[in-house]
Amino acid sequence: MKRARKKCGVWLIGAHGGLATTMTVGTLMARRDLVSKAGLLTETEPFRQLALPALSDLVFGGHDVRQTTVYQSAYDIYKDTGTFDLEKLQAIREELEEIDQDIRIGTAFNCGATIRRLAAAKARKRPGTLRAVIADIQGDLLAFKDRHKLDQVVVVNVASTEPPLPPSPALETAKGIRAVLDADGRKALRASVLYGYAAADLGFPFINFTPNVGSLAPGIQVIARKNGAPFMGNDGKTGETLVKSALAPMFKYRNLKVLTWQGYNILGDRDGQVLANPENKRAKIRTKDGVLSQILGYPLHTHVGIDYVPSLNDLKTAWDFIHFEGFLDFKMSLQFTWQGCDAILAAPIVLDMVRLAAFAQGKGESGLMTWLSCFFKSPVGVDQHDLHFQFHHLMDYVRVHLEGGEWKSGLVARTGQVRLPR
Amino acid sequence: MKRARKKCGVWLIGAHGGLATTMTVGTLMARRDLVSKAGLLTETEPFRQLALPALSDLVFGGHDVRQTTVYQSAYDIYKDTGTFDLEKLQAIREELEEIDQDIRIGTAFNCGATIRRLAAAKARKRPGTLRAVIADIQGDLLAFKDRHKLDQVVVVNVASTEPPLPPSPALETAKGIRAVLDADGRKALRASVLYGYAAADLGFPFINFTPNVGSLAPGIQVIARKNGAPFMGNDGKTGETLVKSALAPMFKYRNLKVLTWQGYNILGDRDGQVLANPENKRAKIRTKDGVLSQILGYPLHTHVGIDYVPSLNDLKTAWDFIHFEGFLDFKMSLQFTWQGCDAILAAPIVLDMVRLAAFAQGKGESGLMTWLSCFFKSPVGVDQHDLHFQFHHLMDYVRVHLEGGEWKSGLVARTGQVRLPR
Amino acid sequence: MKRARKKCGVWLIGAHGGLATTMTVGTLMARRDLVSKAGLLTETEPFRQLALPALSDLVFGGHDVRQTTVYQSAYDIYKDTGTFDLEKLQAIREELEEIDQDIRIGTAFNCGATIRRLAAAKARKRPGTLRAVIADIQGDLLAFKDRHKLDQVVVVNVASTEPPLPPSPALETAKGIRAVLDADGRKALRASVLYGYAAADLGFPFINFTPNVGSLAPGIQVIARKNGAPFMGNDGKTGETLVKSALAPMFKYRNLKVLTWQGYNILGDRDGQVLANPENKRAKIRTKDGVLSQILGYPLHTHVGIDYVPSLNDLKTAWDFIHFEGFLDFKMSLQFTWQGCDAILAAPIVLDMVRLAAFAQGKGESGLMTWLSCFFKSPVGVDQHDLHFQFHHLMDYVRVHLEGGEWKSGLVARTGQVRLPR
Amino acid sequence: MKRARKKCGVWLIGAHGGLATTMTVGTLMARRDLVSKAGLLTETEPFRQLALPALSDLVFGGHDVRQTTVYQSAYDIYKDTGTFDLEKLQAIREELEEIDQDIRIGTAFNCGATIRRLAAAKARKRPGTLRAVIADIQGDLLAFKDRHKLDQVVVVNVASTEPPLPPSPALETAKGIRAVLDADGRKALRASVLYGYAAADLGFPFINFTPNVGSLAPGIQVIARKNGAPFMGNDGKTGETLVKSALAPMFKYRNLKVLTWQGYNILGDRDGQVLANPENKRAKIRTKDGVLSQILGYPLHTHVGIDYVPSLNDLKTAWDFIHFEGFLDFKMSLQFTWQGCDAILAAPIVLDMVRLAAFAQGKGESGLMTWLSCFFKSPVGVDQHDLHFQFHHLMDYVRVHLEGGEWKSGLVARTGQVRLPR
Repeated sequence: MKRARKKCGVWLIGAHGGLATTMTVGTLMARRDLVSKAGLLTETEPFRQLALPALSDLVFGGHDVRQTTVYQSAYDIYKDTGTFDLEKLQAIREELEEIDQDIRIGTAFNCGATIRRLAAAKARKRPGTLRAVIADIQGDLLAFKDRHKLDQVVVVNVASTEPPLPPSPALETAKGIRAVLDADGRKALRASVLYGYAAADLGFPFINFTPNVGSLAPGIQVIARKNGAPFMGNDGKTGETLVKSALAPMFKYRNLKVLTWQGYNILGDRDGQVLANPENKRAKIRTKDGVLSQILGYPLHTHVGIDYVPSLNDLKTAWDFIHFEGFLDFKMSLQFTWQGCDAILAAPIVLDMVRLAAFAQGKGESGLMTWLSCFFKSPVGVDQHDLHFQFHHLMDYVRVHLEGGEWKSGLVARTGQVRLPR
Repeated sequence: MKRARKKCGVWLIGAHGGLATTMTVGTLMARRDLVSKAGLLTETEPFRQLALPALSDLVFGGHDVRQTTVYQSAYDIYKDTGTFDLEKLQAIREELEEIDQDIRIGTAFNCGATIRRLAAAKARKRPGTLRAVIADIQGDLLAFKDRHKLDQVVVVNVASTEPPLPPSPALETAKGIRAVLDADGRKALRASVLYGYAAADLGFPFINFTPNVGSLAPGIQVIARKNGAPFMGNDGKTGETLVKSALAPMFKYRNLKVLTWQGYNILGDRDGQVLANPENKRAKIRTKDGVLSQILGYPLHTHVGIDYVPSLNDLKTAWDFIHFEGFLDFKMSLQFTWQGCDAILAAPIVLDMVRLAAFAQGKGESGLMTWLSCFFKSPVGVDQHDLHFQFHHLMDYVRVHLEGGEWKSGLVARTGQVRLPR
Repeated sequence: MKRARKKCGVWLIGAHGGLATTMTVGTLMARRDLVSKAGLLTETEPFRQLALPALSDLVFGGHDVRQTTVYQSAYDIYKDTGTFDLEKLQAIREELEEIDQDIRIGTAFNCGATIRRLAAAKARKRPGTLRAVIADIQGDLLAFKDRHKLDQVVVVNVASTEPPLPPSPALETAKGIRAVLDADGRKALRASVLYGYAAADLGFPFINFTPNVGSLAPGIQVIARKNGAPFMGNDGKTGETLVKSALAPMFKYRNLKVLTWQGYNILGDRDGQVLANPENKRAKIRTKDGVLSQILGYPLHTHVGIDYVPSLNDLKTAWDFIHFEGFLDFKMSLQFTWQGCDAILAAPIVLDMVRLAAFAQGKGESGLMTWLSCFFKSPVGVDQHDLHFQFHHLMDYVRVHLEGGEWKSGLVARTGQVRLPR
Repeated sequence: MKRARKKCGVWLIGAHGGLATTMTVGTLMARRDLVSKAGLLTETEPFRQLALPALSDLVFGGHDVRQTTVYQSAYDIYKDTGTFDLEKLQAIREELEEIDQDIRIGTAFNCGATIRRLAAAKARKRPGTLRAVIADIQGDLLAFKDRHKLDQVVVVNVASTEPPLPPSPALETAKGIRAVLDADGRKALRASVLYGYAAADLGFPFINFTPNVGSLAPGIQVIARKNGAPFMGNDGKTGETLVKSALAPMFKYRNLKVLTWQGYNILGDRDGQVLANPENKRAKIRTKDGVLSQILGYPLHTHVGIDYVPSLNDLKTAWDFIHFEGFLDFKMSLQFTWQGCDAILAAPIVLDMVRLAAFAQGKGESGLMTWLSCFFKSPVGVDQHDLHFQFHHLMDYVRVHLEGGEWKSGLVARTGQVRLPR
């Protein structure tokens, strides 16, 4: 099928981070065939038959609280983690440098001391009012769209983990959020909320890849839906949790009773550094921990640890120990060690989602993109964590569109049940 | 739902082996609530709503080439592997001893030198004619059915791995097999074929849990189907291959290219001892190795090793190393160590299948039970190895029956595709 | 060599714990040859040539804060962890029951809320005065010695981990400790100090296998030495730390720079339960963490985690991840998983030390038994953690005695250097 | 101490292999401080006080059967395994290119089909006579020495693994070897023997880092010793065997009975490719397998597997499973996964040995350098495999020289107290 030649902006909150840089570098290299398309689900069948934006249709820009260049960020990753090949990086250097003009200083508003320390002076300075911050963000977004004559701009939050927001009824409704903004109620919000609001208010699709649930607070969802924006979150599922959600069903299929599932993650990149702060870590652990009892259908002893190990850089290592009981109440175990690079695993699925979000908006769909649940640790509005169900829910969505059908919310509602594709 | 009070015989080929003994001991303990029902899928919902034989309806008997008692076999397992609790074993000792009268010396015909060495004199001695051996087997089966006034007898092959049979057109048809038997063509057959034929000829359901594919040679399938017997095989999926078939789809869901999947199994029980003979090992490796490329859809570097480690007894340990490539062609890895007891993992699924085979025959179904594919490394007639598809195929079968429907072969045909339950 | 036929008492503080029970059960089984002597270093050459007390010369008694019987404790271990064989346990049941008369209710004085909860009413009740508690302890010890006409009584602390004691100058000197006792200064002390003092004051050899350093506070050491008692501690080295101290030198031998050594311990026995309390855990982590930088000679990133996993009981599992840098600054890794039973690993080395302590006192030696450093995570007075040095220091001690020589403190001084003993 | 400014040649048999290239690249980078000196034991104390050749005194040359350039070999390693940094590689490019003139086509005489396939035409062609081949080798060595005005040339065999030589009495004596050469007895020899003879005959120090024991056949040793050459081999100890020899003593120290030690190595470089040929693999397995029973003092169940996994390149991964029995005959386990780069681990120890061999010859020492046993899987003339003894034997050697003493065979005996090799 011929793909629509529409230009699609990708606005990265956290544009100088490892994930955003890997997305940018990977897209540029892949479209020149310097690397394969591995990792991109949207480059396999049957996705290739959908009218998704091509890799060459994507235009990158974004916000970051740190001041550097895209090439420098990429070079640092080459040095520290070794995920890029230097010769190939040099081959796309000019293209990377062009992106610099589309990176703006973002806000680190209320993100906790660790993120603040990393931030440039401008990002740290006390904002005028919340409304003024939002106006700045939206100004940047619209200028980006305008400058590149983009048909669409998908906003993705790939920033660092903030401390969790205290629960607040104000964020539950559109009205509540607007009231907080009008009153300039700084304590109730963090940067993630401001970004989420800015995008929703403009009707731009939004992907929240972070555990900062504020980006998709219920009130923001209402606004986005009203403005025709599809959106999804929270917290990308890239490593240990991915394996968990693929493996746990096996125990159910055999009525093997999982007694204990201990998970220990060690990592050393900037994300790890931020998570070394217990305040920020709390938000992360929260989204990682609900998966198992949902899949298995009973409570069990679980533990999820995250520790900062600088020498690993972004090469996250996780050890999981699963203790289970079988016939005759005999205990057995399975342990696995996952050694993956978070940015390498995350970048292609963010790109997959960007393309699918642009597609959805093109089809006139708005609201929660439940069919992207397989990409999230804590998929908003979906309480099915079994990776296989989640994946086949996405396949259903694709099939409906390939058959020229219309995706109905009725189908979505059935996802929680034992619904899988034909 | 009230369960049918019908007595169901379980005829175990390899009745003194670790697996058969664990089935027997586990059933007796579980029906007295000395242990939980963990491991038995048929004791979970929605299986509990089907009219399956209850655990207390099962009556055990079987053939073995070694001469001992059921209690002694169980006691040896307690000593060597520790999977039974001695006090509970003593509590069921009398019941175990009653089973001894239903264990007959079987045939080790053409099973290779290692099995022959383990066998009792009677089992080793040169059989009269193949027809005579079959007549003996059938005599034992019918006497068992008669003595206990059984409604059904499900025959299960849980014997040791034989050397693989050389391919033979004679086994492809019912006629061909009968010709071999008439000609007493000893070289073309092994014990497993004789057992399979004996059961098929009587119209008894048959489960081949071993890699000895001769039990379900195409010609035998024809005979079984004609005589109204449901059957399924080959080679129970209990450990490393189970994990493989649960995990491999994850890589597909993310377009992560698996470069290498090395698997090393070490085990020390009688099965391990038999497999230490390269001749017997070949059959095993063969059924373990096709799983991955089918699931992933491309060829990859794989290796499956099995080594005999006496100190482990039946506590099989497997280490798998998976090397895969993601975005930017970056290589990552996952490794797992599986520490499970083969007999403990296998026993409940054999029981599950016995109950489901009895149920199927009760419903007038015959032929391949494709819905049991999730229990086999090399499911006959099913080339779908993805555990999740296999499991939901079984769920489909259950649902059709719970809704009072009739299971049609048409549904079976759809299994190979992306068919999963609603 | 003919062994001296002297009766040696073994007084176990924590007599109903898993470790003490395993020591007792193992000794009784081993001396009847129901099990091998594996795990006992003193049953290998050249130790067998020393005049150590024979296993059959050992008489067991002790204190515990819980009220139960030795057989019941042993039976519980059989049920929970499976380390004992039931038939063999029944074979020594009578002998175990005889020991019950020598178990007295101990003190849980100031041991923290978790230990208090486990304790019997009598152990929890507020003691009269510290002096009175000590008098009770000493009364029990002397009665035991008298009742069995023992030549010696070695006191070993195998109780649960207490919260760490705040540093106190009072414990630094004999005078200071006596002043605290005279003033009945309850806040400065815990049960471990009282036990240590009681033994030192009687001149009984003392082994502190726990991380409760108070048992061997400097002031107590002075008293013990003056009264002719040899002693050693702290915190038995049985699992992950043992492997660490054996492996770490390898990296030094190759100038491989260890960047990170992360260790995660999971366990589920009573010790794990006590350690789940952060207050008690602190003491444990402290003794586990100094080993590496001493061996390697430079600071490195380390982490030691201990988490409570009830399903494991005493089958402790530890995963260690070691990240190191070699030639060309290239990073590599080693990871290991240790699956050991703490009590099984600890019991024989406590017995080894009891025999060696009795031997030392028989030779007129008193004070720190530095040659036992290989058995401790935090050997008092020895800052050499390299297991190989520690072991050969013990071999030196044995050799000197086998050659009829006299062990001089001068030899001790040489241990710390980079020289294997000659 | 001021180092002697003598130029020392390093003649690499297998000069284009991964190991030789890593040695060359690493030396050039380290002497410009582009990388640290990690991995080089001779750059730590007390070695730094010995008058060893400095890194900047080393001059590289060698033989190889493949025709390429040093830079190209290095670039390939950068691409395939990623052990070099490209920018640093470019910085030393010119120096690498200068080495090309000192690389000569070597002989693949009788090395097996796999090596022959890799070899250049010239290396494959049938040699004139054995004597002529040796004359060519010696001509290359002397020309190299002459061209660079070298004080010494140390010859190191870092070529691929040959098929094992059939045992031959002719190689046992100097006379026997000369007779074979005179008779041009091609079947009895392989390339490794010719290289070893050529060096011995010239009195050049020789390090055999390969499992090709022919290089140091007894007859060759006699010749080398007579000509004043120190030498040592066989088969560098860099990975799994290194860990084994460091860990195994721990079990002895605790009288823990090792029942089973299974080791599985997977690797994908040229060495792995050569080892995929069972003929060549045999030699390797042989040197890896004797270590454990020597250290532990009893026979045990062991297995060493090596499998070729192309995707790993030189990043060798090994999984070892150790099953052991402790007190009460309770079974426990330790497993480890080693992920190291063979060339990175091997290169610095070859350099260490080159320096120490040059030093030894400078001191007038000749014959077996037993003090280098810690670097070999199968140290010639040393039957002590305990890494700690081996290492301290080397320390002894260093100390004697630092104290201005003379290393005597008597001193070697002195280490017998700590059971060091004779």
